Amino acid sequence: MKLDKILLATTNKGKLKEFKHLLKDAEIQILSLQDMPQKIEVVEDRPTFLENAIKKAKEYALFYKVPVIAEDAGLEIDALGGFPGVYSARFFSLKEFGGEEPVQDSTDRANILKVLRLMEGEKNRTARFVSNIVLYIPEEEGFWTEGYLYGEITQSPLGEGGFGYDPIFRPIDSEKTLAQLSPEEKNRISHRGQAVRKLIKVIKQLKNE
Amino acid sequence: MKLDKILLATTNKGKLKEFKHLLKDAEIQILSLQDMPQKIEVVEDRPTFLENAIKKAKEYALFYKVPVIAEDAGLEIDALGGFPGVYSARFFSLKEFGGEEPVQDSTDRANILKVLRLMEGEKNRTARFVSNIVLYIPEEEGFWTEGYLYGEITQSPLGEGGFGYDPIFRPIDSEKTLAQLSPEEKNRISHRGQAVRKLIKVIKQLKNE
Repeated sequence: MKLDKILLATTNKGKLKEFKHLLKDAEIQILSLQDMPQKIEVVEDRPTFLENAIKKAKEYALFYKVPVIAEDAGLEIDALGGFPGVYSARFFSLKEFGGEEPVQDSTDRANILKVLRLMEGEKNRTARFVSNIVLYIPEEEGFWTEGYLYGEITQSPLGEGGFGYDPIFRPIDSEKTLAQLSPEEKNRISHRGQAVRKLIKVIKQLKNE
Repeated sequence: MKLDKILLATTNKGKLKEFKHLLKDAEIQILSLQDMPQKIEVVEDRPTFLENAIKKAKEYALFYKVPVIAEDAGLEIDALGGFPGVYSARFFSLKEFGGEEPVQDSTDRANILKVLRLMEGEKNRTARFVSNIVLYIPEEEGFWTEGYLYGEITQSPLGEGGFGYDPIFRPIDSEKTLAQLSPEEKNRISHRGQAVRKLIKVIKQLKNE
């Protein structure tokens, strides 16, 4: 299988940075959407992480005619019945669940404030981060890997690292939130780190042809 | 990856027979749904072959805790805007598109009669068979392969082999319908044959750990 160049289909800067760091071991050239001459928009409207990631991977791969890596990831909070889930990135704007949260400094911050508001006084704070990563080779085959990180939602944001919900997520057996860990510490345990390491393993096996 | 035993999640006898034949080379033990003690029902209600195949693979794999192979396949007819597509197996009963077709001897036959009725007088008879096969290892990873067979819809059914729409599908460069070919001839060119051969290649690579 020809896997020298792969397009990493994410517009999220936090993810792009983590991915490039994590994929250093894979010995492949990573293209990003900014490298592509024509732009297309892919709507993430599916009910599961996997279906969203596959939709992104397929639409970009069939348009640009290159292998594509796409991820969908998010936070599932038990007391909220699995929300924000596939709505993680735009939870602040989801009127139908918990009402809209005004954006003051950033959407990350608005998402966090909404979660803390909905979790106020809630004793059950267990949650998990989920990452589904898809690699698709146009009209041929694809595969995906899954990574999970279990933990709980803190009472308030702590730490400046990472992105998204990291400041309010404390992994099991950790005294720090994800945002208080170094990038290396985060990648070692994170849902994305686990899924990427499985991906690299599979890429290496598939390249041995 | 532990891939000695894989559950082949299909209730379609025609498919099961073809799969067992095709997977002989893969050196894995194939379990079928009849071997499983408890029964579950999985509804194929997704808009694409791939999403249906993934849904089946995931639900069976998470329930039985074994790796699962699942397929969704079907016939896409250009003059019918891609129908029967994901409705291929139950096209006869799809009231919303072309009206219900009474079942006389078999549902395969009713599906064929409905297609021939809708294609009466139609000059553009191009079509393709599509197979999407998914292998899923519970909570770890999955992959899928795709196979396509291009051809056209005949004016009437011909041949006794195969199953489904085989009697009215003549592959490009063939003078016979799929139902007039021997199992070996059909597997060599078919959408399912292509997808399974890619699958076996990937299974062999993944087993080399």
